[in-house]
Amino acid sequence: MKVAFIGLGTMGYPMAGHLVAQGHDVTVYNRTTEKAARWASEHQGSYQETPALAAQDADIVFTCVGNDDDVRQVFNGEHGILKSVRAGTLLVDHTTASPDVAIEIAELAKQIDCRFIDAPVSGGEAGAVNGVLTVMIGGDAADFAKAEPVMRAYAKSMSLMGPVGNGQITKMANQICIAGVLQGLSEAVTLASQSGLDIDKMVDVLKHGAAGSWQMENRASTMNKREFDFGFAIDWMRKDLGICFDHAQKIGVELPLAKQVDAKYAELQQQGLNRCDTSVLIKQYDSE
Amino acid sequence: MKVAFIGLGTMGYPMAGHLVAQGHDVTVYNRTTEKAARWASEHQGSYQETPALAAQDADIVFTCVGNDDDVRQVFNGEHGILKSVRAGTLLVDHTTASPDVAIEIAELAKQIDCRFIDAPVSGGEAGAVNGVLTVMIGGDAADFAKAEPVMRAYAKSMSLMGPVGNGQITKMANQICIAGVLQGLSEAVTLASQSGLDIDKMVDVLKHGAAGSWQMENRASTMNKREFDFGFAIDWMRKDLGICFDHAQKIGVELPLAKQVDAKYAELQQQGLNRCDTSVLIKQYDSE
Repeated sequence: MKVAFIGLGTMGYPMAGHLVAQGHDVTVYNRTTEKAARWASEHQGSYQETPALAAQDADIVFTCVGNDDDVRQVFNGEHGILKSVRAGTLLVDHTTASPDVAIEIAELAKQIDCRFIDAPVSGGEAGAVNGVLTVMIGGDAADFAKAEPVMRAYAKSMSLMGPVGNGQITKMANQICIAGVLQGLSEAVTLASQSGLDIDKMVDVLKHGAAGSWQMENRASTMNKREFDFGFAIDWMRKDLGICFDHAQKIGVELPLAKQVDAKYAELQQQGLNRCDTSVLIKQYDSE
Repeated sequence: MKVAFIGLGTMGYPMAGHLVAQGHDVTVYNRTTEKAARWASEHQGSYQETPALAAQDADIVFTCVGNDDDVRQVFNGEHGILKSVRAGTLLVDHTTASPDVAIEIAELAKQIDCRFIDAPVSGGEAGAVNGVLTVMIGGDAADFAKAEPVMRAYAKSMSLMGPVGNGQITKMANQICIAGVLQGLSEAVTLASQSGLDIDKMVDVLKHGAAGSWQMENRASTMNKREFDFGFAIDWMRKDLGICFDHAQKIGVELPLAKQVDAKYAELQQQGLNRCDTSVLIKQYDSE
């Protein structure tokens, strides 16, 4: 299949590679052209200088860029995807963005007889490299059915969550849950370790019970050892939480805990910890 | 073995029953004597009118009462356990109480050549009834080794967490983690359901990822349906969080999230929801 992939960041770079490995004819675009050229030389693929050029012959176009404005730019900018794609092309956005931008682009796509689904992912860099991402999709069932076998190149789990925008809603819920789990874990690990408890032993006892969580199993020990040079950076978490706050305000839902966690992340960014994993939240206890 | 069991509440009543089923000679005491008499008639056991009388011939004495004051009363009150037990008796306190009271009773026990371990449990009423509790123990290894085969009557997992008091520290960490998970889940489920997402579908997608938790798997769906007539009552959660706050203040650790969750539980108690499961936290969104 002729595939375009727009955005070769931490996630997109390996994802596009998996598409080549699965036998697709892949053309990429990246804002920094050198990176696109490097990708093309490392893989059996080609690159173009604009999203429009990369997408013009594609059967399916994937995007994985930074934020709402980037999504608008690559789709609807002067050299955007919507300027060149053929009628019938399927457009799949892997960016974590707002449901509003998803609905907006889906509407524009419809006007030129193209289809759009929002498809944010979870699983982080490791998930992208190992091809085991989870994809949360908003859109029509027929479009999902068309995209699914292609996305299987880098996803182990793909779920249709409802109409366009619902992939993004699901991703928001994911990030808010993580914020809650990590703040509870920060408080619990600090209290316990300052009381002399062996944190690894504590995790072994608690992880299968009512307090158990993925973060407890995978992060409590490293939090206690102050190891954060892996995982999902707080820069990205803050971007995602910002999307949550905008949406929550729009529908009139308060997110008090998520807001407080975000404020703590803002302080940690100021301390230069912006590339650290979200579990760095425990360092709220380290300021003197 | 001759066993005494003091405190036939929601947890103690079935726990004492499991000890009989395992072949022990069990004598119980309960503040309300009628309940002790009922327990004795339902099981092959006997009851006494005071903790001292119940404990006097025992090889091992279990206690499972309400709070620190209750622990002090049943051990060190006028008719307390310490007034009658033989030298060499092992005392096991299953109450969720403060590490301070554990250390205090352990010291008093030592003065009469008895041994004490703190052994709070998790797993709730269902865990007690089904004999699959998790026990977190603070004390000496030799005492733990002696208690372990007896506790196996109602526990599936028992772990020695360090010296006396460390069982209680572990239980605190458990409750604080639960508070964090539940507040995150309350915010996420509310945002998602008010955005039209199918919560059961959302749980299926998120539960195995970085946002996953026991509470998500077991409570998100019932939270969304406003079902709370099971599980662990917020009355008890508030008691446990109070122990956390006292201890945290003593060692100088802030617990901002746990405090906020506790304040929300206090409001829900005022609304008469005090016997509801801790997942009732989501009803913070239902006040008009």
